[in-house]
Amino acid sequence: MSTDIGRGVKELLEAHGRPEREVYLDGENSVKVYKKVVEEMIPYFNEKAYGNPSITHKIGWESYEAFREAASYIASRIGSDNPQNLIFTHSGTEANNLAIKGFALANRKKGNKIIISDVEHLSIVFPAETLKKEGFEIVKIPVDKEGFVDLEALETAVDKDTLLVSIIWVNHEIGTIEPIKEIVRIAKEKNPNVIVHTDAADAFGKIPIDVKDVGIDMMTLSSPKIGGPKGVGALYVRQGIKLASLIQGQVSIERIWPGVENMPLIMGFYAASKMIFENFDENIKYLKKLRDRLIDGILDNVPYTLLNGPRGEKRAPDNVNISFLYCEGEALTVEFSMNGVYVSSGSACTSRVLEPSHVLLAIGREYEEAHGSLLMKVTLEHTEEDIDYVISVIPKAVERIRKISSIKPK
Amino acid sequence: MSTDIGRGVKELLEAHGRPEREVYLDGENSVKVYKKVVEEMIPYFNEKAYGNPSITHKIGWESYEAFREAASYIASRIGSDNPQNLIFTHSGTEANNLAIKGFALANRKKGNKIIISDVEHLSIVFPAETLKKEGFEIVKIPVDKEGFVDLEALETAVDKDTLLVSIIWVNHEIGTIEPIKEIVRIAKEKNPNVIVHTDAADAFGKIPIDVKDVGIDMMTLSSPKIGGPKGVGALYVRQGIKLASLIQGQVSIERIWPGVENMPLIMGFYAASKMIFENFDENIKYLKKLRDRLIDGILDNVPYTLLNGPRGEKRAPDNVNISFLYCEGEALTVEFSMNGVYVSSGSACTSRVLEPSHVLLAIGREYEEAHGSLLMKVTLEHTEEDIDYVISVIPKAVERIRKISSIKPK
Repeated sequence: MSTDIGRGVKELLEAHGRPEREVYLDGENSVKVYKKVVEEMIPYFNEKAYGNPSITHKIGWESYEAFREAASYIASRIGSDNPQNLIFTHSGTEANNLAIKGFALANRKKGNKIIISDVEHLSIVFPAETLKKEGFEIVKIPVDKEGFVDLEALETAVDKDTLLVSIIWVNHEIGTIEPIKEIVRIAKEKNPNVIVHTDAADAFGKIPIDVKDVGIDMMTLSSPKIGGPKGVGALYVRQGIKLASLIQGQVSIERIWPGVENMPLIMGFYAASKMIFENFDENIKYLKKLRDRLIDGILDNVPYTLLNGPRGEKRAPDNVNISFLYCEGEALTVEFSMNGVYVSSGSACTSRVLEPSHVLLAIGREYEEAHGSLLMKVTLEHTEEDIDYVISVIPKAVERIRKISSIKPK
Repeated sequence: MSTDIGRGVKELLEAHGRPEREVYLDGENSVKVYKKVVEEMIPYFNEKAYGNPSITHKIGWESYEAFREAASYIASRIGSDNPQNLIFTHSGTEANNLAIKGFALANRKKGNKIIISDVEHLSIVFPAETLKKEGFEIVKIPVDKEGFVDLEALETAVDKDTLLVSIIWVNHEIGTIEPIKEIVRIAKEKNPNVIVHTDAADAFGKIPIDVKDVGIDMMTLSSPKIGGPKGVGALYVRQGIKLASLIQGQVSIERIWPGVENMPLIMGFYAASKMIFENFDENIKYLKKLRDRLIDGILDNVPYTLLNGPRGEKRAPDNVNISFLYCEGEALTVEFSMNGVYVSSGSACTSRVLEPSHVLLAIGREYEEAHGSLLMKVTLEHTEEDIDYVISVIPKAVERIRKISSIKPK
């Protein structure tokens, strides 16, 4: 973040102008919180239930009641009748860290092998790498061209030394919905003591979830992935599983994660959950309509494009990820921005370091294909007109970038 | 959090009634965010600069500009001209964990002794205990009756094996302002390689801070302590100091702490900083006036009361901590609540476990004295009328509780 970059950014903003419409499709990088969620959340900053739910005065009691209501509702939406099984964290990232590192460090005597997949979020990948340095064996299961985990490889990998299996339920980049129930079954058949965690940050609010039916032991949730505020996530932990704290401090309702519950953010997470679940089937249908309209609109109107991830029912209802061949992703995001279309290139997680997404490489995309990929997420606040506007500006924008690109069709 | 507790809470709320005035003095447990801060923060949830500051589109550039402005301002208020020295965390707790554990784990070859004081926040105490289990030597410096660190004991403790000294600048419970410049000087004189951290969560916005003048290496800041939103804090880290990540994930502007910057919360932290610093001297004078009015009002009107911590210039401008002898703190908080006065008993950190505050025990309070202590913090939104109302209801409330208390004057 040098001063030079700062100057560049200011100039870019000044040069940007005012496009006729603005469509923010970059929810993967940072959420545009739903209007209704912000409205419902605001009073909890200073009007009601802004206290510590553990404290014995009126504001504390209000907070306790509000917290209980929010936690019970969110728990019920994953098929759990016990809100105490939800540990509220500061983010999905922290929930993933807690599930991987917190579990491994508290249970190291029970096994040494940890199995993940080739397409996990970096908040699983990096903690796994750290555990490897600390002596754990890390096995990564490959995926097919659509991102589905190789179940045979999983079955082979699980053994009696296996402590933990962590597979992402719905891929954050390419939308692949993994057969998590099957994954749990395979893992537990090979070793009944194995604990299975799933990063469900992109599954919660996108597909039906029932922790009991699936038999999952731990599961990561994230508020911003459903239009709620950033700064709050949760880890579902089945009764009886021990975790080590990674961050320590004030003892509150939750013993594993420190600090006082962040009531406004938790109530925002709750508001976003209600918004999606109170009309779940219709909402999902609407997202899928927007998703497919955007996918088809791009594939039909822009040559040399490839969809990343599966189509139809096995794809997250909000996920659009397309490789634009013979283009630099970063150049595309800037050109799209000038037209009011805000997307991200490659993985949100790696965009800063300008390395191609490990998820796209794992499904077999070439380095250059991965580099020209754009990730877009549709939301309940988008309209069909928004999508049509995007489709109307993308072809010309891509054409312009291809003209100046050094990568040409053979 | 059993169902029984839930029922009790509901009944308590129903029985609560409507006191003629409500005064929330429990900012230590959970912040009532300043109205102006909420107003300034709201647009960043979904109207402007709600993006990832690392991403190359308009919303990302807006976010980058806003982030730079906020970080530069906050850095300038601690005498730093380099906002890159601020790592934004999810809380003061996380900043403290990063400073202690993150530093110790990344520098273990340089020394084995870590020195803290007897009156640190639990987010220092618990990580230090964890490091002790991992082989570090932890030395705790005692304090006097007003909470001031024993400088001679500190001088004796620092040796060539000392890696880190971490002393709280302004005590969160009893308001003692430690002579941090003197502490840094003593530590560095004994060992020029020692790194000094201070938890300045209750110092920032309460007393003038100049990191260069003080010569501090690392410093913890917290948004909710100055009326900003919970969910954001920062760790100032002098150039060249290496820290290990405790939580790992997406690479963003900051490499040490993972995830995308939480723009609305950071902008809320910024708004709260501006609110206090734009009229700093007058604001502090106002807080001190309210503080002393409340202290005197209680000590003069309620028998058997003791002020915890020093008086006057060496006390935090917002801190009131009083031991009510022959009372249970929890009973007092409930009785005060019925009168619309919301305070916390003992330490925010230990109130749930009903153990007396380690800070009060460290300054020599007896177990029972510590148990009947109440912590109150005045804010810029309180009025003199609020304070007078509190003073008017407290004596009777204390009298009622003493009548039913099993602890009687000898």
